[in-house]
Amino acid sequence: MKLRWPRELPKVRLCFLLGTMACAAQASEPTHFPDAQASDPATLGWMVGSPPPADRILRFEDGSYFRFPQMRWSVANFRQLMPTVNVSRGLAGPSMLERTSSGEIDALTFVPLGGDEPMTWQQSLLANYTDGIVILHRGKLVYERYFGVLKPEGQHAAMSITKTFTGTLAALLVSEGKLDPERMVADYVPELAVSAFGNASVRQLMDMTTGIHFSEDYADPKAEVWAHAAAGNPLPKPADYQGPRTYYEFLQTVKPQGRHGEAFHYRTANSDALGWVIARVSGRNVAQLLSERIWSRLGAEQDAYMSVDSIGTPFAGGGLNAGLRDLARFGEMMRNEGRYNGTQILPPEVVTDIRNGASREDFAKAGYRLLPGWSYRNMWWVTHNEHGAFMARGVHGQALYIDPLAEMVIARFASHPVAGNAANDPTSLPAFEAVAKHLLEQRQ
Amino acid sequence: MKLRWPRELPKVRLCFLLGTMACAAQASEPTHFPDAQASDPATLGWMVGSPPPADRILRFEDGSYFRFPQMRWSVANFRQLMPTVNVSRGLAGPSMLERTSSGEIDALTFVPLGGDEPMTWQQSLLANYTDGIVILHRGKLVYERYFGVLKPEGQHAAMSITKTFTGTLAALLVSEGKLDPERMVADYVPELAVSAFGNASVRQLMDMTTGIHFSEDYADPKAEVWAHAAAGNPLPKPADYQGPRTYYEFLQTVKPQGRHGEAFHYRTANSDALGWVIARVSGRNVAQLLSERIWSRLGAEQDAYMSVDSIGTPFAGGGLNAGLRDLARFGEMMRNEGRYNGTQILPPEVVTDIRNGASREDFAKAGYRLLPGWSYRNMWWVTHNEHGAFMARGVHGQALYIDPLAEMVIARFASHPVAGNAANDPTSLPAFEAVAKHLLEQRQ
Repeated sequence: MKLRWPRELPKVRLCFLLGTMACAAQASEPTHFPDAQASDPATLGWMVGSPPPADRILRFEDGSYFRFPQMRWSVANFRQLMPTVNVSRGLAGPSMLERTSSGEIDALTFVPLGGDEPMTWQQSLLANYTDGIVILHRGKLVYERYFGVLKPEGQHAAMSITKTFTGTLAALLVSEGKLDPERMVADYVPELAVSAFGNASVRQLMDMTTGIHFSEDYADPKAEVWAHAAAGNPLPKPADYQGPRTYYEFLQTVKPQGRHGEAFHYRTANSDALGWVIARVSGRNVAQLLSERIWSRLGAEQDAYMSVDSIGTPFAGGGLNAGLRDLARFGEMMRNEGRYNGTQILPPEVVTDIRNGASREDFAKAGYRLLPGWSYRNMWWVTHNEHGAFMARGVHGQALYIDPLAEMVIARFASHPVAGNAANDPTSLPAFEAVAKHLLEQRQ
Repeated sequence: MKLRWPRELPKVRLCFLLGTMACAAQASEPTHFPDAQASDPATLGWMVGSPPPADRILRFEDGSYFRFPQMRWSVANFRQLMPTVNVSRGLAGPSMLERTSSGEIDALTFVPLGGDEPMTWQQSLLANYTDGIVILHRGKLVYERYFGVLKPEGQHAAMSITKTFTGTLAALLVSEGKLDPERMVADYVPELAVSAFGNASVRQLMDMTTGIHFSEDYADPKAEVWAHAAAGNPLPKPADYQGPRTYYEFLQTVKPQGRHGEAFHYRTANSDALGWVIARVSGRNVAQLLSERIWSRLGAEQDAYMSVDSIGTPFAGGGLNAGLRDLARFGEMMRNEGRYNGTQILPPEVVTDIRNGASREDFAKAGYRLLPGWSYRNMWWVTHNEHGAFMARGVHGQALYIDPLAEMVIARFASHPVAGNAANDPTSLPAFEAVAKHLLEQRQ
């Protein structure tokens, strides 16, 4: 089997999402990586032993935890590396996830984007450096696999899927009349009046159509991405440190670039700013509100958690860690118009609004070659395909894929060596579509 | 109501249990403290707001988190301040804790140790700076209260109750023949041959009758307590730092003092050394083993967690944080000879051995004026009273009190300003006995 899609993709350096200095270490990484089996974190034995061997110890402060393949351990163990805040599931029993069979999924084949030879579903799991994957069909568990160090009773970094929870919470507050999407951000957070966010509308934040200057040029030590990472780093700041010291301080320094409302620009800072708005409006930080309004009502089987900055601010743009099945439960709730575990968790109109998406023209301006015709609404990625599928996405392959027509939810955690999902979309999106097609055929 | 027991007790500086430098900050604290209501962390609003006011922000690195009254927030939020490792409850539903009434407990009266005027149970809750307390009678929940920032769905520092879990796990391994209590510590952990622990028996570790030099003189910058704290601190070490860098490195530096096996000496380092032995024997660290062998079998309603050092070693001497009801479930399992949630979690002989206690003469040499006739076995405190009560105890008022005759378990989390339990025993131990007496009378 030969694939034409490139193994050496430009490295989309989104590792700042972790709010750390890890990217400094990553900048010197090779662009060829060991494959999924050679990089298996269980085989490599990171942090195993009493004490672990010196070359198997991973640390937060020196960035070793986020080099590849080390990060394959770290994404399932962030709480051992940094302070975190709990997202309680409450104390009741978990909602049942009934199991059933839906035929042979492993042998399903698909043609990767840009390729011309088929690949099996099972092969795609390794190609995508999958750590865990769950498929629900009509709410029942039809497929579940774990790799490396992730287990069902474990929590994995959701990366930018965090944004989707932040956006969904904002949409919920909007539906309750507590948050007006047409009002300016500074109306809710006066401290942001000095920043580019101040005269953006809440809607523009939620759909990431703000015009802000946020450089991700890692070669430039003055790039905003470094200030964001340093601000969010929970470790004590160096004595000579002069920059912003928290997410909130960083957000006030963000400068304008272009006009608001004209194009989709994927910038993590929008989610952090939205998190601030949510905190002001609700009197809860994002972790607390997520627990109260969603997590504790899902019948989640595990608490989730979020990383925090040095003053306890949950990282609304990328700090969530959760169990895989619980992520699937959240997806199933979305598939069921907001209803799950016997409760209407989100009003149906919130879900409908997300599914309907936003402006596809605004989205097209961002130039995602692999996502033609998509849009971004309330921090969800909307495919606008024939099945009406929509997604939550996070760097290194985190995915929650909801296909309403096929009555299917796929939740996946991964640790792909390349941050940007352009590296795994070719072997992910058509694979998800192949399962959807299979499940639709099963139904007939 | 006048009490004769002193409000100004010598401060037993056991805060090193946290493995931090917090005691430096504490050293200049007053010896008069605001009372429970004036120090209520919910009222004081620590870490509330977006951002919190500057004078309400608590940090790990500067020790502010462990000053009083700030620590009343911190003990319910350690994971926001430092890296931690999960102790999974597994994924099944929690075991039921049925509720029932057992008469009016709040109005029960008792005479504090060293006092001559009665106090009510309800008054004792404030006197002890209680954060949460649960009473089980015959396994049913007959009393439950929370104060400050602790909630049922929250986890509180168990402090040295951690030791009791470590000791119980060791006893379990002994019962399975995996650990021989008569063998030398160095037989299991050769690295400890150079230390005072090397030629101690595992039994001496488990009962804390080792002869080790472990000064807790905070005025002495060379005291072992500082080295222990610095070694366990998960933050990056200062550039000029020369000392041990992990719990394991610290343990190898512990020097002998006196002979092993002659007297009870309460020294946290014994628990850490036992944790190392356990890790070697089981191939699991204490957090993993605790999850596998106890926590996931209790039907706990929440995961617990442990603080870790810079290489992920769980702090076996004091790092556990757990839900209050789950601590009570553990106590109920002990009351039921190791059986709980439909499972024999510990062999009955392990529990019997603990209840029988150890040498009361060895214990008496330690000079605990308020604990006459007690002993210490497998890191449990055994009262040898007429009810056969035994306890797990942690600084600042953490308590798990099991009274077999009264068929009663009391689990309490607290944030008393004085670390040493001599400060709260006068209003705790007779209060527990008063409830036991009440429940025995109810039965008749």
